[in-house]
Amino acid sequence: MQLVGDERLDFLLAEDLAIIQSPSVFSFSLDAVLLARFVHVPIQKGSLIDLCSGNGVIPLLLSTRTKGKIVGVEIQERLHDMAIRSIAHNGLEGQLSMIHDDLNKVVPNLGAARHDVVTCNPPYFLTSSMEEKNVNEHFAIARHEIMCTLEDTIKASSQLLKQGGKAAFVHRPGRLLDLVTLMRKYRLEPKRIRFIYPNNGKEANTILIEGIKDGRSDVKILPPLYVHEENGEYTSEIKEILYGDRA
Amino acid sequence: MQLVGDERLDFLLAEDLAIIQSPSVFSFSLDAVLLARFVHVPIQKGSLIDLCSGNGVIPLLLSTRTKGKIVGVEIQERLHDMAIRSIAHNGLEGQLSMIHDDLNKVVPNLGAARHDVVTCNPPYFLTSSMEEKNVNEHFAIARHEIMCTLEDTIKASSQLLKQGGKAAFVHRPGRLLDLVTLMRKYRLEPKRIRFIYPNNGKEANTILIEGIKDGRSDVKILPPLYVHEENGEYTSEIKEILYGDRA
Repeated sequence: MQLVGDERLDFLLAEDLAIIQSPSVFSFSLDAVLLARFVHVPIQKGSLIDLCSGNGVIPLLLSTRTKGKIVGVEIQERLHDMAIRSIAHNGLEGQLSMIHDDLNKVVPNLGAARHDVVTCNPPYFLTSSMEEKNVNEHFAIARHEIMCTLEDTIKASSQLLKQGGKAAFVHRPGRLLDLVTLMRKYRLEPKRIRFIYPNNGKEANTILIEGIKDGRSDVKILPPLYVHEENGEYTSEIKEILYGDRA
Repeated sequence: MQLVGDERLDFLLAEDLAIIQSPSVFSFSLDAVLLARFVHVPIQKGSLIDLCSGNGVIPLLLSTRTKGKIVGVEIQERLHDMAIRSIAHNGLEGQLSMIHDDLNKVVPNLGAARHDVVTCNPPYFLTSSMEEKNVNEHFAIARHEIMCTLEDTIKASSQLLKQGGKAAFVHRPGRLLDLVTLMRKYRLEPKRIRFIYPNNGKEANTILIEGIKDGRSDVKILPPLYVHEENGEYTSEIKEILYGDRA
Protein backbone atom coordinates (compact mmCIF):
# COMPACT_ATOMS: atom_id res chain seq x y z
CA MET A 1 0.00 0.00 0.00
CA GLN A 2 1.36 3.37 -1.02
CA LEU A 3 0.73 6.69 0.72
CA VAL A 4 0.67 9.76 -1.57
CA GLY A 5 1.82 13.27 -0.53
CA ASP A 6 0.63 14.16 2.99
CA GLU A 7 -1.51 11.04 3.37
CA ARG A 8 -1.26 9.05 6.56
CA LEU A 9 -2.65 5.74 7.76
CA ASP A 10 -5.14 6.25 10.59
CA PHE A 11 -6.81 3.54 12.63
CA LEU A 12 -10.45 2.75 13.31
CA LEU A 13 -9.73 1.33 16.72
CA ALA A 14 -13.15 -0.10 17.59
CA GLU A 15 -13.17 -2.01 14.29
CA ASP A 16 -9.49 -2.87 14.04
CA LEU A 17 -9.24 -1.36 10.56
CA ALA A 18 -6.88 1.12 8.93
CA ILE A 19 -7.85 4.04 6.69
CA ILE A 20 -5.90 6.44 4.52
CA GLN A 21 -6.50 10.09 5.31
CA SER A 22 -5.01 13.39 4.23
CA PRO A 23 -5.26 16.63 6.16
CA SER A 24 -5.19 18.64 2.90
CA VAL A 25 -7.77 16.50 1.08
CA PHE A 26 -10.17 14.69 3.41
CA SER A 27 -10.42 13.25 6.90
CA PHE A 28 -13.55 11.50 8.10
CA SER A 29 -15.65 13.09 10.81
CA LEU A 30 -17.38 11.76 13.90
CA ASP A 31 -20.64 12.20 11.98
CA ALA A 32 -19.68 9.46 9.52
CA VAL A 33 -18.80 7.13 12.38
CA LEU A 34 -22.13 7.82 14.09
CA LEU A 35 -24.06 7.17 10.88
CA ALA A 36 -22.27 3.85 10.34
CA ARG A 37 -23.35 2.79 13.84
CA PHE A 38 -26.87 4.17 13.62
CA VAL A 39 -28.17 2.59 10.43
CA HIS A 40 -30.00 -0.74 10.59
CA VAL A 41 -28.20 -3.30 8.41
CA PRO A 42 -28.95 -6.88 7.40
CA ILE A 43 -26.38 -9.08 9.15
CA GLN A 44 -25.91 -12.12 6.90
CA LYS A 45 -26.33 -10.75 3.38
CA GLY A 46 -27.70 -7.90 1.32
CA SER A 47 -26.62 -5.02 -0.86
CA LEU A 48 -25.55 -1.76 0.75
CA ILE A 49 -24.66 1.50 -1.00
CA ASP A 50 -22.82 4.46 0.53
CA LEU A 51 -23.22 7.72 -1.38
CA CYS A 52 -20.80 10.68 -0.98
CA SER A 53 -18.45 8.03 0.34
CA GLY A 54 -15.30 10.18 0.60
CA ASN A 55 -12.35 8.05 1.64
CA GLY A 56 -14.67 5.09 2.21
CA VAL A 57 -14.94 5.34 5.98
CA ILE A 58 -18.59 4.29 6.13
CA PRO A 59 -18.17 1.15 3.95
CA LEU A 60 -15.13 0.18 6.04
CA LEU A 61 -17.04 0.61 9.31
CA LEU A 62 -20.14 -1.18 7.99
CA SER A 63 -18.03 -4.17 6.94
CA THR A 64 -17.81 -5.18 10.60
CA ARG A 65 -21.61 -5.12 11.03
CA THR A 66 -22.78 -7.03 7.94
CA LYS A 67 -21.67 -9.76 5.58
CA GLY A 68 -23.55 -8.00 2.74
CA LYS A 69 -21.75 -6.41 -0.20
CA ILE A 70 -21.07 -2.71 0.17
CA VAL A 71 -20.43 -0.27 -2.66
CA GLY A 72 -19.18 3.27 -2.05
CA VAL A 73 -19.86 6.01 -4.60
CA GLU A 74 -17.50 8.99 -4.68
CA ILE A 75 -17.25 11.76 -7.27
CA GLN A 76 -13.76 12.99 -6.33
CA GLU A 77 -11.13 10.85 -8.02
CA ARG A 78 -8.50 11.51 -5.37
CA LEU A 79 -10.82 10.34 -2.55
CA HIS A 80 -12.03 7.37 -4.57
CA ASP A 81 -8.41 6.35 -5.01
CA MET A 82 -7.72 6.64 -1.27
CA ALA A 83 -10.75 4.47 -0.55
CA ILE A 84 -9.65 1.79 -3.04
CA ARG A 85 -6.22 1.59 -1.40
CA SER A 86 -7.73 1.45 2.12
CA ILE A 87 -10.03 -1.41 1.10
CA ALA A 88 -7.07 -3.32 -0.33
CA HIS A 89 -4.92 -2.60 2.73
CA ASN A 90 -7.60 -4.17 4.96
CA GLY A 91 -8.03 -7.13 2.60
CA LEU A 92 -11.71 -6.34 2.08
CA GLU A 93 -11.83 -6.42 -1.75
CA GLY A 94 -14.23 -9.38 -1.59
CA GLN A 95 -16.87 -7.39 0.26
CA LEU A 96 -16.26 -3.72 -0.50
CA SER A 97 -15.93 -1.86 -3.77
CA MET A 98 -15.92 1.74 -4.90
CA ILE A 99 -17.40 3.48 -7.93
CA HIS A 100 -15.98 6.77 -9.15
CA ASP A 101 -19.16 8.46 -10.31
CA ASP A 102 -21.70 11.23 -9.85
CA LEU A 103 -24.64 10.10 -7.68
CA ASN A 104 -26.94 11.84 -10.15
CA LYS A 105 -25.83 9.37 -12.83
CA VAL A 106 -25.02 6.22 -10.88
CA VAL A 107 -28.48 4.63 -10.49
CA PRO A 108 -28.61 2.80 -13.87
CA ASN A 109 -25.13 1.47 -13.20
CA LEU A 110 -25.96 0.12 -9.73
CA GLY A 111 -29.52 -0.89 -10.63
CA ALA A 112 -32.75 0.75 -9.51
CA ALA A 113 -34.87 -0.72 -6.68
CA ARG A 114 -32.32 -3.47 -6.03
CA HIS A 115 -30.57 -2.50 -2.79
CA ASP A 116 -31.32 -3.02 0.91
CA VAL A 117 -29.58 -0.08 2.51
CA VAL A 118 -28.30 3.33 1.38
CA THR A 119 -26.24 5.56 3.66
CA CYS A 120 -25.08 9.09 2.98
CA ASN A 121 -23.14 11.73 4.87
CA PRO A 122 -23.77 14.50 2.34
CA PRO A 123 -22.28 17.98 2.03
CA TYR A 124 -24.00 20.03 4.75
CA PHE A 125 -23.79 23.54 3.44
CA LEU A 126 -25.75 25.35 0.76
CA THR A 127 -23.54 26.88 -1.91
CA SER A 128 -25.11 30.22 -0.93
CA SER A 129 -23.25 29.95 2.38
CA MET A 130 -19.91 29.99 0.56
CA GLU A 131 -18.81 33.48 1.60
CA GLU A 132 -16.51 31.65 3.99
CA LYS A 133 -15.81 29.45 0.99
CA ASN A 134 -13.31 26.68 1.12
CA VAL A 135 -10.63 27.67 -1.35
CA ASN A 136 -9.50 24.06 -1.19
CA GLU A 137 -11.62 22.40 -3.88
CA HIS A 138 -11.57 18.99 -2.16
CA PHE A 139 -13.03 20.42 1.04
CA ALA A 140 -15.45 22.64 -0.87
CA ILE A 141 -16.97 19.68 -2.75
CA ALA A 142 -17.17 17.57 0.41
CA ARG A 143 -18.80 20.31 2.47
CA HIS A 144 -20.95 22.37 0.11
CA GLU A 145 -23.78 21.38 -2.21
CA ILE A 146 -21.68 21.96 -5.31
CA MET A 147 -21.87 18.58 -7.04
CA CYS A 148 -25.13 17.41 -5.46
CA THR A 149 -27.97 18.91 -3.45
CA LEU A 150 -29.76 17.26 -0.54
CA GLU A 151 -32.63 16.55 -2.92
CA ASP A 152 -30.28 14.80 -5.39
CA THR A 153 -29.01 12.60 -2.57
CA ILE A 154 -32.44 11.63 -1.29
CA LYS A 155 -33.78 11.04 -4.79
CA ALA A 156 -30.88 8.74 -5.73
CA SER A 157 -31.18 6.89 -2.41
CA SER A 158 -34.86 6.20 -2.99
CA GLN A 159 -34.29 5.07 -6.56
CA LEU A 160 -31.62 2.60 -5.44
CA LEU A 161 -33.70 1.03 -2.66
CA LYS A 162 -36.07 -1.91 -2.82
CA GLN A 163 -39.46 -1.46 -1.19
CA GLY A 164 -38.83 -1.81 2.52
CA GLY A 165 -35.17 -0.85 2.09
CA LYS A 166 -33.60 1.61 4.52
CA ALA A 167 -31.96 4.98 3.85
CA ALA A 168 -29.97 6.68 6.59
CA PHE A 169 -28.55 10.18 6.55
CA VAL A 170 -26.60 12.43 8.88
CA HIS A 171 -27.06 16.19 8.67
CA ARG A 172 -27.46 19.41 10.62
CA PRO A 173 -30.69 19.86 12.65
CA GLY A 174 -31.40 23.13 10.83
CA ARG A 175 -32.15 20.97 7.77
CA LEU A 176 -34.56 18.65 9.63
CA LEU A 177 -37.58 20.01 7.81
CA ASP A 178 -35.93 19.78 4.41
CA LEU A 179 -34.86 16.22 5.21
CA VAL A 180 -38.29 14.98 6.23
CA THR A 181 -40.09 16.87 3.47
CA LEU A 182 -37.76 15.54 0.77
CA MET A 183 -37.72 12.03 2.22
CA ARG A 184 -41.52 11.90 2.07
CA LYS A 185 -41.46 13.36 -1.44
CA TYR A 186 -39.29 10.42 -2.53
CA ARG A 187 -41.25 7.74 -0.59
CA LEU A 188 -38.69 7.37 2.21
CA GLU A 189 -40.85 7.50 5.33
CA PRO A 190 -38.80 8.71 8.33
CA LYS A 191 -38.91 6.06 11.07
CA ARG A 192 -36.02 6.69 13.47
CA ILE A 193 -34.39 9.98 14.45
CA ARG A 194 -31.56 10.52 16.89
CA PHE A 195 -30.27 13.92 17.85
CA ILE A 196 -26.63 14.44 18.80
CA TYR A 197 -25.82 17.09 21.39
CA PRO A 198 -22.27 18.44 21.89
CA ASN A 199 -22.95 18.19 25.62
CA ASN A 200 -25.70 18.34 28.22
CA GLY A 201 -27.58 21.66 28.09
CA LYS A 202 -26.64 22.60 24.51
CA GLU A 203 -28.84 22.50 21.41
CA ALA A 204 -28.43 19.50 19.10
CA ASN A 205 -25.82 20.01 16.36
CA THR A 206 -26.31 16.80 14.39
CA ILE A 207 -29.24 14.64 13.33
CA LEU A 208 -29.26 10.98 12.37
CA ILE A 209 -32.35 9.93 10.44
CA GLU A 210 -33.45 6.64 8.91
CA GLY A 211 -36.39 6.10 6.59
CA ILE A 212 -38.01 3.05 5.03
CA LYS A 213 -39.04 3.06 1.39
CA ASP A 214 -42.85 3.00 1.37
CA GLY A 215 -42.86 2.56 5.15
CA ARG A 216 -45.86 3.34 7.35
CA SER A 217 -45.96 6.78 8.99
CA ASP A 218 -44.70 6.56 12.58
CA VAL A 219 -41.41 8.09 13.63
CA LYS A 220 -39.50 7.30 16.82
CA ILE A 221 -37.22 9.82 18.54
CA LEU A 222 -34.38 7.80 20.05
CA PRO A 223 -32.60 8.77 23.27
CA PRO A 224 -30.25 11.75 22.88
CA LEU A 225 -26.54 11.12 22.29
CA TYR A 226 -24.12 13.43 24.05
CA VAL A 227 -20.60 13.78 22.66
CA HIS A 228 -18.77 15.44 25.54
CA GLU A 229 -18.90 15.36 29.32
CA GLU A 230 -18.83 18.67 31.18
CA ASN A 231 -15.04 18.37 31.54
CA GLY A 232 -14.67 18.18 27.74
CA GLU A 233 -13.87 14.45 27.59
CA TYR A 234 -15.80 12.17 25.29
CA THR A 235 -18.78 10.48 26.95
CA SER A 236 -18.55 6.75 27.55
CA GLU A 237 -20.94 6.09 24.64
CA ILE A 238 -18.70 8.01 22.22
CA LYS A 239 -15.56 6.33 23.58
CA GLU A 240 -17.13 2.93 23.01
CA ILE A 241 -18.09 3.91 19.44
CA LEU A 242 -14.61 5.25 18.64
CA TYR A 243 -12.38 2.93 20.61
CA GLY A 244 -14.49 -0.17 21.35
CA ASP A 245 -12.77 -2.50 23.79
CA ARG A 246 -9.77 -0.17 23.80
CA ALA A 247 -11.83 2.62 25.40
CA MET B 1 -66.71 29.85 44.07
CA GLN B 2 -68.82 26.70 43.80
CA LEU B 3 -67.57 23.17 43.15
CA VAL B 4 -69.92 20.91 41.18
CA GLY B 5 -70.19 17.13 41.64
CA ASP B 6 -66.78 15.50 42.04
CA GLU B 7 -64.85 18.69 41.29
CA ARG B 8 -61.98 19.67 43.54
CA LEU B 9 -59.71 22.68 43.85
CA ASP B 10 -56.13 21.82 42.90
CA PHE B 11 -53.13 24.08 43.20
CA LEU B 12 -50.55 25.22 40.68
CA LEU B 13 -47.84 25.54 43.28
CA ALA B 14 -45.12 27.18 41.18
CA GLU B 15 -47.58 29.91 40.15
CA ASP B 16 -49.55 30.20 43.38
CA LEU B 17 -52.84 29.68 41.55
CA ALA B 18 -55.83 27.40 42.10
CA ILE B 19 -57.67 25.42 39.43
CA ILE B 20 -60.89 23.44 39.40
CA GLN B 21 -60.47 19.86 38.25
CA SER B 22 -62.68 16.80 38.09
CA PRO B 23 -61.45 13.21 37.88
CA SER B 24 -64.52 12.20 35.84
CA VAL B 25 -64.40 15.15 33.43
CA PHE B 26 -60.93 16.60 32.98
CA SER B 27 -57.65 17.04 34.80
CA PHE B 28 -54.75 18.88 33.21
CA SER B 29 -51.63 16.94 32.27
CA LEU B 30 -47.93 17.62 32.61
CA ASP B 31 -47.94 18.26 28.85
CA ALA B 32 -50.07 21.38 29.28
CA VAL B 33 -47.74 22.67 31.99
CA LEU B 34 -44.70 22.05 29.80
CA LEU B 35 -46.30 23.87 26.85
CA ALA B 36 -47.15 26.87 29.03
CA ARG B 37 -43.47 27.09 30.04
CA PHE B 38 -42.08 26.39 26.59
CA VAL B 39 -43.83 28.99 24.45
CA HIS B 40 -42.23 32.39 23.92
CA VAL B 41 -44.58 35.13 25.12
CA PRO B 42 -44.46 38.94 25.03
CA ILE B 43 -43.98 40.13 28.61
CA GLN B 44 -45.63 43.55 28.80
CA LYS B 45 -48.58 43.30 26.42
CA GLY B 46 -50.07 41.40 23.51
CA SER B 47 -52.90 39.08 22.64
CA LEU B 48 -52.63 35.37 23.37
CA ILE B 49 -55.08 32.61 22.43
CA ASP B 50 -55.21 29.10 23.85
CA LEU B 51 -57.15 26.60 21.73
CA CYS B 52 -58.50 23.31 23.13
CA SER B 53 -58.19 25.07 26.46
CA GLY B 54 -59.93 22.46 28.63
CA ASN B 55 -60.25 23.72 32.19
CA GLY B 56 -58.10 26.74 31.32
CA VAL B 57 -54.83 25.50 32.78
CA ILE B 58 -52.66 27.06 30.05
CA PRO B 59 -54.21 30.55 30.26
CA LEU B 60 -53.88 30.41 34.06
CA LEU B 61 -50.22 29.41 33.86
CA LEU B 62 -49.43 31.95 31.12
CA SER B 63 -50.93 34.76 33.24
CA THR B 64 -47.81 34.66 35.41
CA ARG B 65 -45.49 35.09 32.40
CA THR B 66 -47.18 37.94 30.50
CA LYS B 67 -49.30 41.00 31.10
CA GLY B 68 -51.00 40.41 27.72
CA LYS B 69 -54.66 39.46 27.43
CA ILE B 70 -55.29 35.73 27.16
CA VAL B 71 -58.38 34.08 25.70
CA GLY B 72 -59.07 30.36 26.06
CA VAL B 73 -61.31 28.57 23.54
CA GLU B 74 -63.06 25.39 24.66
CA ILE B 75 -65.80 23.45 22.89
CA GLN B 76 -67.00 21.47 25.93
CA GLU B 77 -69.44 23.55 27.95
CA ARG B 78 -68.66 21.77 31.21
CA LEU B 79 -64.92 22.48 30.89
CA HIS B 80 -65.53 26.05 29.76
CA ASP B 81 -67.59 26.55 32.90
CA MET B 82 -64.86 25.12 35.12
CA ALA B 83 -62.34 27.48 33.50
CA ILE B 84 -64.59 30.52 34.03
CA ARG B 85 -64.91 29.72 37.73
CA SER B 86 -61.16 29.13 38.12
CA ILE B 87 -60.39 32.48 36.49
CA ALA B 88 -62.82 34.20 38.86
CA HIS B 89 -61.45 32.35 41.89
CA ASN B 90 -57.96 33.62 41.10
CA GLY B 91 -59.26 37.16 40.47
CA LEU B 92 -57.91 37.14 36.92
CA GLU B 93 -61.05 38.30 35.06
CA GLY B 94 -59.23 41.44 33.94
CA GLN B 95 -56.61 39.46 32.02
CA LEU B 96 -58.16 36.10 31.16
CA SER B 97 -61.37 35.19 29.41
CA MET B 98 -62.93 32.08 27.90
CA ILE B 99 -64.97 31.50 24.76
CA HIS B 100 -67.27 28.49 24.49
CA ASP B 101 -66.87 27.72 20.79
CA ASP B 102 -65.60 25.37 18.11
CA LEU B 103 -62.08 26.30 16.97
CA ASN B 104 -63.25 25.72 13.40
CA LYS B 105 -65.68 28.63 13.76
CA VAL B 106 -63.95 30.94 16.22
CA VAL B 107 -61.60 32.89 13.94
CA PRO B 108 -64.09 35.58 12.76
CA ASN B 109 -65.12 36.10 16.38
CA LEU B 110 -61.54 36.54 17.66
CA GLY B 111 -60.31 38.30 14.52
CA ALA B 112 -57.95 36.94 11.88
CA ALA B 113 -54.25 37.92 11.80
CA ARG B 114 -54.59 39.94 15.02
CA HIS B 115 -52.90 37.86 17.72
CA ASP B 116 -49.33 37.44 18.94
CA VAL B 117 -49.35 33.93 20.34
CA VAL B 118 -51.49 30.80 19.95
CA THR B 119 -50.99 27.74 22.13
CA CYS B 120 -52.73 24.39 21.80
CA ASN B 121 -52.55 21.06 23.58
CA PRO B 122 -54.81 19.24 21.11
CA PRO B 123 -56.39 15.78 21.24
CA TYR B 124 -53.53 13.35 20.51
CA PHE B 125 -55.30 10.35 19.09
CA LEU B 126 -56.81 9.69 15.70
CA THR B 127 -60.44 8.64 15.89
CA SER B 128 -59.32 5.47 14.09
CA SER B 129 -57.45 4.50 17.28
CA MET B 130 -60.71 4.43 19.22
CA GLU B 131 -60.94 0.66 19.67
CA GLU B 132 -59.77 1.38 23.19
CA LYS B 133 -62.26 4.20 23.02
CA ASN B 134 -63.06 6.38 25.97
CA VAL B 135 -66.68 5.68 26.78
CA ASN B 136 -66.61 8.88 28.83
CA GLU B 137 -67.51 11.51 26.25
CA HIS B 138 -65.55 14.28 28.03
CA PHE B 139 -62.34 12.27 27.88
CA ALA B 140 -63.05 11.07 24.34
CA ILE B 141 -63.38 14.65 23.02
CA ALA B 142 -60.30 15.81 24.90
CA ARG B 143 -58.16 12.89 23.72
CA HIS B 144 -59.39 11.93 20.25
CA GLU B 145 -59.70 13.99 17.08
CA ILE B 146 -63.50 13.95 17.24
CA MET B 147 -64.33 17.65 17.22
CA CYS B 148 -61.12 18.86 15.54
CA THR B 149 -58.21 17.32 13.67
CA LEU B 150 -54.58 18.37 13.98
CA GLU B 151 -54.97 20.15 10.65
CA ASP B 152 -57.99 22.12 11.96
CA THR B 153 -55.94 23.21 14.95
CA ILE B 154 -52.93 24.33 12.94
CA LYS B 155 -55.07 26.08 10.33
CA ALA B 156 -57.00 28.05 12.97
CA SER B 157 -53.76 28.93 14.78
CA SER B 158 -52.25 30.32 11.62
CA GLN B 159 -55.36 32.31 10.75
CA LEU B 160 -55.40 33.91 14.20
CA LEU B 161 -51.73 34.96 14.17
CA LYS B 162 -50.17 38.16 12.93
CA GLN B 163 -47.14 37.82 10.69
CA GLY B 164 -44.28 37.02 13.04
CA GLY B 165 -46.69 35.65 15.66
CA LYS B 166 -45.86 32.39 17.41
CA ALA B 167 -47.80 29.14 17.54
CA ALA B 168 -46.78 26.45 20.03
CA PHE B 169 -48.11 22.91 20.24
CA VAL B 170 -47.52 19.83 22.34
CA HIS B 171 -48.06 16.40 20.81
CA ARG B 172 -46.73 12.87 20.49
CA PRO B 173 -43.43 12.40 18.59
CA GLY B 174 -45.12 9.93 16.25
CA ARG B 175 -46.96 12.94 14.79
CA LEU B 176 -43.78 14.99 14.27
CA LEU B 177 -43.97 14.70 10.50
CA ASP B 178 -47.65 15.58 10.36
CA LEU B 179 -46.95 18.56 12.64
CA VAL B 180 -44.12 20.00 10.56
CA THR B 181 -45.81 19.27 7.23
CA LEU B 182 -49.08 20.90 8.31
CA MET B 183 -47.32 23.82 9.99
CA ARG B 184 -45.46 24.59 6.77
CA LYS B 185 -48.69 24.17 4.78
CA TYR B 186 -50.25 26.91 6.93
CA ARG B 187 -47.18 29.23 6.91
CA LEU B 188 -46.08 28.39 10.49
CA GLU B 189 -42.37 27.75 10.05
CA PRO B 190 -41.10 25.45 12.85
CA LYS B 191 -38.32 27.23 14.75
CA ARG B 192 -37.89 25.50 18.13
CA ILE B 193 -38.43 21.86 19.04
CA ARG B 194 -37.92 20.22 22.41
CA PHE B 195 -38.32 16.52 22.99
CA ILE B 196 -39.49 15.19 26.37
CA TYR B 197 -38.14 11.82 27.51
CA PRO B 198 -39.78 9.86 30.35
CA ASN B 199 -36.25 9.17 31.57
CA ASN B 200 -32.66 8.74 30.41
CA GLY B 201 -32.33 5.93 27.86
CA LYS B 202 -35.97 5.88 26.72
CA GLU B 203 -37.45 7.17 23.46
CA ALA B 204 -39.12 10.58 23.57
CA ASN B 205 -42.85 10.45 24.37
CA THR B 206 -43.74 14.12 23.93
CA ILE B 207 -42.76 16.92 21.56
CA LEU B 208 -42.98 20.66 22.12
CA ILE B 209 -42.84 22.67 18.91
CA GLU B 210 -43.04 26.39 18.18
CA GLY B 211 -43.38 28.02 14.80
CA ILE B 212 -43.38 31.58 13.55
CA LYS B 213 -45.91 32.75 10.99
CA ASP B 214 -43.96 33.42 7.78
CA GLY B 215 -40.68 32.78 9.65
CA ARG B 216 -37.42 31.91 7.95
CA SER B 217 -36.55 28.21 7.65
CA ASP B 218 -34.14 27.22 10.44
CA VAL B 219 -35.20 24.97 13.26
CA LYS B 220 -33.37 24.54 16.58
CA ILE B 221 -33.50 21.32 18.59
CA LEU B 222 -33.37 22.36 22.23
CA PRO B 223 -31.74 20.27 24.97
CA PRO B 224 -33.76 17.18 25.94
CA LEU B 225 -36.05 17.36 28.96
CA TYR B 226 -36.20 14.29 31.18
CA VAL B 227 -39.25 13.79 33.40
CA HIS B 228 -38.03 11.14 35.83
CA GLU B 229 -34.78 10.17 37.50
CA GLU B 230 -33.80 6.51 37.50
CA ASN B 231 -35.40 6.10 40.93
CA GLY B 232 -38.74 7.29 39.52
CA GLU B 233 -38.69 10.72 41.17
CA TYR B 234 -39.24 13.84 39.12
CA THR B 235 -36.04 15.44 37.84
CA SER B 236 -35.06 18.77 39.36
CA GLU B 237 -36.15 20.58 36.17
CA ILE B 238 -39.65 19.08 36.39
CA LYS B 239 -39.86 19.80 40.13
CA GLU B 240 -38.98 23.42 39.48
CA ILE B 241 -41.65 23.64 36.76
CA LEU B 242 -44.34 22.06 38.94
CA TYR B 243 -43.47 23.34 42.39
CA GLY B 244 -41.26 26.40 41.79
CA ASP B 245 -39.73 27.70 45.02
CA ARG B 246 -41.61 25.01 46.94
CA ALA B 247 -39.65 22.23 45.19
